[in-house]
Amino acid sequence: MGRTSDARERILSAARSLIETHGYSALGVAEICRTAGVPKGSFYYFFDSKESLALAVIDEHWTGQKRTWATALGGDAQRGDAQPLLRLRRLFEATEVGLRTAQRSCGTVSGCLFGNLTLEMSNQTEAIRTRLQEIFEAQVEMVDSVIAEALERQEVEVADTREAARAVVAQLEGQVLFAKLYNSTQQLGPLWANCLALLGAHAPRETAAGV
Amino acid sequence: MGRTSDARERILSAARSLIETHGYSALGVAEICRTAGVPKGSFYYFFDSKESLALAVIDEHWTGQKRTWATALGGDAQRGDAQPLLRLRRLFEATEVGLRTAQRSCGTVSGCLFGNLTLEMSNQTEAIRTRLQEIFEAQVEMVDSVIAEALERQEVEVADTREAARAVVAQLEGQVLFAKLYNSTQQLGPLWANCLALLGAHAPRETAAGV
Repeated sequence: MGRTSDARERILSAARSLIETHGYSALGVAEICRTAGVPKGSFYYFFDSKESLALAVIDEHWTGQKRTWATALGGDAQRGDAQPLLRLRRLFEATEVGLRTAQRSCGTVSGCLFGNLTLEMSNQTEAIRTRLQEIFEAQVEMVDSVIAEALERQEVEVADTREAARAVVAQLEGQVLFAKLYNSTQQLGPLWANCLALLGAHAPRETAAGV
Repeated sequence: MGRTSDARERILSAARSLIETHGYSALGVAEICRTAGVPKGSFYYFFDSKESLALAVIDEHWTGQKRTWATALGGDAQRGDAQPLLRLRRLFEATEVGLRTAQRSCGTVSGCLFGNLTLEMSNQTEAIRTRLQEIFEAQVEMVDSVIAEALERQEVEVADTREAARAVVAQLEGQVLFAKLYNSTQQLGPLWANCLALLGAHAPRETAAGV
């Protein structure tokens, strides 16, 4: 990888870590460049503004998170985990692991980047609001597909799978907020039981094949 | 009211409104004083720092909100609204009215001040984290009491009223996050149905006496 693309990556990585610990408003271009170890000119070579940097940070984070969500929620009968509800549980476990890893590296639960930016920024810039809406819609869509599968199998009782998916994502965001507040990923413990309650489901029996 | 106490109130009110629209980090003492129409010296007469101002804003907001929560959740058989679950619904309605009123005055749903500050600030200052923890504990406690009453009346099925109350408050925060994201209080519409699902309850029959 050439020097130029290294600099962009370093800026993105520094910005993401600074946003995670101090939020977006507290972010200054000089501090980003100092943390990234790049001259200030590099910043403006890659990004028009702090806002365009924030959008790039959001996109990069979503690219990674979407993969995690797809892996957790994807059905694969051969891996013995095809039950839709167990895949939802896997999503919560993956979320907890992600928060714990970040906590170990920066000393504190930084929460969900998208939730953080929604509460800090969504009423300030329309470009960021729109991007965050798209991401939350995509999350709801992914959860919706799994709930629809569970409904097909008569494992849940919901009137509207989309609304149910939105409730699950809202519950996830609310519990991640508590995890940040108490600096403890244990706050996510009840997420699975809460999700089952929201879906009118009982805990699925885990069989060897999981199907 | 004397001039001195007016100035403190004006600073608090300006700070709250600026925090609601731009968050805490973006807040400057000069801007607060300009908005409040007080000289900078007044600020430091009343507040040691931006942090102590934030704590005062939080306390003042909680004083008002606690009253709203107590009114919504308080049982009063004479008013014909003693059913615990209907009182929870009243809390969601009061939350929606509060958000709508604020939206009309500042043009955008600013969300929950405590949720906003939790995601923006709780991993930055321990004093603010502790205060926000106390407030969320108090909220959970208030909801817990109502759920315990409903359990006594066999209107809900929960294993642990405290955990159930935490799930309800988390759901509220998650849906308020969506309301801010979409700048629409209609996002709170499903809150009541989601709450009933979390509590394993059916919608209570509304009788004339409500009991």
